[in-house]
Amino acid sequence: MNRISKLFQPMVIIPKGAVVKKQEVSSKSHRLMTELGLIKPATNGTFYLLPLMQRSVEKLVAIVDAHMNLVDAQKVTLPILTSGELWKKSGRLTGGINREIMTTVDRHENLQVLSPTNEESITSLMASLSPISYKQLPLRFYQIGTKFRDEMKPRFGLIRTKEFIMKDMYTFDGNETNALDTYHEICHIYERMLKHLGLTSFTKVAGDSGLMGGNLSHEYHLPATVGDDRLMSCQKCGHAANLEMILEEKRNKCPKCDSESIKITEGIEVAHTFLLGDKYSKPLKATYLQEHGLTEPLVMGCFGVGITRLVAAAIEVLSTDTDIRWPRRLAPFTVCLIPPKSGSKEDKSGGNSLAEELYVKISKLPGLENDTVLDDRNHLTIGKRLLLAKRMGYPFVIVAGSKVTETPPLLELHHVETGKCLELTPSDIISEVRKHLE
Amino acid sequence: MNRISKLFQPMVIIPKGAVVKKQEVSSKSHRLMTELGLIKPATNGTFYLLPLMQRSVEKLVAIVDAHMNLVDAQKVTLPILTSGELWKKSGRLTGGINREIMTTVDRHENLQVLSPTNEESITSLMASLSPISYKQLPLRFYQIGTKFRDEMKPRFGLIRTKEFIMKDMYTFDGNETNALDTYHEICHIYERMLKHLGLTSFTKVAGDSGLMGGNLSHEYHLPATVGDDRLMSCQKCGHAANLEMILEEKRNKCPKCDSESIKITEGIEVAHTFLLGDKYSKPLKATYLQEHGLTEPLVMGCFGVGITRLVAAAIEVLSTDTDIRWPRRLAPFTVCLIPPKSGSKEDKSGGNSLAEELYVKISKLPGLENDTVLDDRNHLTIGKRLLLAKRMGYPFVIVAGSKVTETPPLLELHHVETGKCLELTPSDIISEVRKHLE
Repeated sequence: MNRISKLFQPMVIIPKGAVVKKQEVSSKSHRLMTELGLIKPATNGTFYLLPLMQRSVEKLVAIVDAHMNLVDAQKVTLPILTSGELWKKSGRLTGGINREIMTTVDRHENLQVLSPTNEESITSLMASLSPISYKQLPLRFYQIGTKFRDEMKPRFGLIRTKEFIMKDMYTFDGNETNALDTYHEICHIYERMLKHLGLTSFTKVAGDSGLMGGNLSHEYHLPATVGDDRLMSCQKCGHAANLEMILEEKRNKCPKCDSESIKITEGIEVAHTFLLGDKYSKPLKATYLQEHGLTEPLVMGCFGVGITRLVAAAIEVLSTDTDIRWPRRLAPFTVCLIPPKSGSKEDKSGGNSLAEELYVKISKLPGLENDTVLDDRNHLTIGKRLLLAKRMGYPFVIVAGSKVTETPPLLELHHVETGKCLELTPSDIISEVRKHLE
Repeated sequence: MNRISKLFQPMVIIPKGAVVKKQEVSSKSHRLMTELGLIKPATNGTFYLLPLMQRSVEKLVAIVDAHMNLVDAQKVTLPILTSGELWKKSGRLTGGINREIMTTVDRHENLQVLSPTNEESITSLMASLSPISYKQLPLRFYQIGTKFRDEMKPRFGLIRTKEFIMKDMYTFDGNETNALDTYHEICHIYERMLKHLGLTSFTKVAGDSGLMGGNLSHEYHLPATVGDDRLMSCQKCGHAANLEMILEEKRNKCPKCDSESIKITEGIEVAHTFLLGDKYSKPLKATYLQEHGLTEPLVMGCFGVGITRLVAAAIEVLSTDTDIRWPRRLAPFTVCLIPPKSGSKEDKSGGNSLAEELYVKISKLPGLENDTVLDDRNHLTIGKRLLLAKRMGYPFVIVAGSKVTETPPLLELHHVETGKCLELTPSDIISEVRKHLE
């Protein structure tokens, strides 16, 4: 049984008064996530993910896995330490982007990059197995792991950090046409995934393929005022782009149709797609054998989703100033159940055991296994605990209040996203929760 | 449907003849895992985990999670980049152990350690929330993630690498007695977990608490000839210790009872436990508030399981020279199903659709969801595919052979661990597989 009293939440264990001051944090999500015990800063740009945040991240990882499975992508682990030599071959360890790349030198004086992204690494793997038969194509790999970027100014909490969890995916096709089909298929699955998360307000814009190279790129943004990115969308032809992509002096009209009816919004980038062509496969010699015997470079794409960033960005977009709101599927627990206060009339008349029975039944609902938490801090009033549960944004809060001793017993079901509250019998509560999960 | 034809397995995509030579690898597990497409070296001491290995690792992670849950340990993520300052405070960034610690310097000239282990980091987190109330204790945290160690000579494949996946756990109690109880409880759950994995041949020996400090330590080893560790066990009093722990000149008798009836074996360390006391909590000021108002340092323990190493060590211990054998719960797929060869009599009489129907049914068995693979390389003979399946060590291999067209149809169920084979109807195959899973 998941009991809040056992949960490590600084809200509980921080001494009174130790509330986060607004000036210490640079975004709403940062402040809320710190105040509610989801994260804690370690150094400038690195964070501890505390147990509730860990749950949320693992839920997102499972959702990403499921969507990757739908496009036959195979999960792997690529090393974090990648050979500096490889980065010299691809040309990315020279010039202006250097400063963001973190490196280490091992005891044998080998330079190694702490991978911010893994084009070199996966291409080198494919090269070591080249030429690959055309029969094996398309090949799609992804991993979910820690990446590093030496940000000048880490900020906005988990939105811009030096160390972050990212899903990076790499695709290999035999020619540009197939690679473009793959590109569109992955863009489509990204959109499907954002919708599945309820993040329907995303914007897709033409992206900057700068660092990666390649010839086609899109970014997915969530609309927010703390984003680093400013996005242009044309009200006439519908073209949308990151302003970075447009020359300073041309930013007053649409680069595609010249219309001046454009809208500028701000966004947080949560995903990025790139058609890479042979930028990496050619220098690193990752090739395949065509049906008629010719050997050609593989045509690549790469596709990223910021895992920790997506959770933080969603909180930034959905929350109020005081209360966290999650995409329902990412809430640390979907249901929070609040039993009567210790020593209350309801406690004495069996309200607590009724609540615990309900806990067990809800935990057996398909899709809700291990996804309910019991707020057993029964020394606190129901009102206080309800307030805390709403601040934390558990999508459903069930309260065993004063009517739990009636016949039949009635409990409150708070649907936190809409603010609605119903008084229902235990079995009706179960049907109602189940209805929302469909 | 999991189809081997879609699986990225160098065995399939490596050009003929590119078999791994014995001299290139330093252990049986390394060779088998490379030959069978589970891993691929990246640099000296780093590896790619390929899709089948990734599955195995994720199975182990789920098993570790479940066991950690049994002892109320809460999962977190601690940063990989940890502040060099912290390591100076604890005294671990000076002296002889330095060479194994990898570091990086960021653009602001801050020294950061690529964490090999996280005592400083978690203690600093607890210190930032100190004093913690005695009511919150015991507290137990763990994470599963990548760790770094700058090995002089990485070797034995995944057994000794520069970068590896480890489960590290940290416990906090209010006094030595409780900390010792926690220590024994975690040792017990480690033993239960090794047994759950079928690795009953493990040895528990008194360990070296060198690097960690602290006053009590044990190691769990699997018996193998490629291990780095030599273990002494006394045939008289039962005391067991890592030979490292015993002075050179005293290694001819038991350090506890002086008996000369001792046995020396070799082992691969897969888990390590430490009672740390206040070695970290005192200098880093991680404290708790006692019931009567006194503030005292927390008493700590730390507990590690090498995730990638455990998988490799298990393969080292269980496999033959040519065939991988897994702890059943860690096999990439539990069941492999081999349908008839394309164009064969059995194929033409519907043997393939019968096999696929069986696939669907088996995939619905509790505990076997998404855990069966269909070897749809139907251009290969059944014999060839059966041989490959046995080399890969899938615990159950089902073959739709010549009797699949009989009435009732009979299939072969190969129980790979025992070498036994039964001829059964589809429904009997399901009952038999289910029986083994209990």
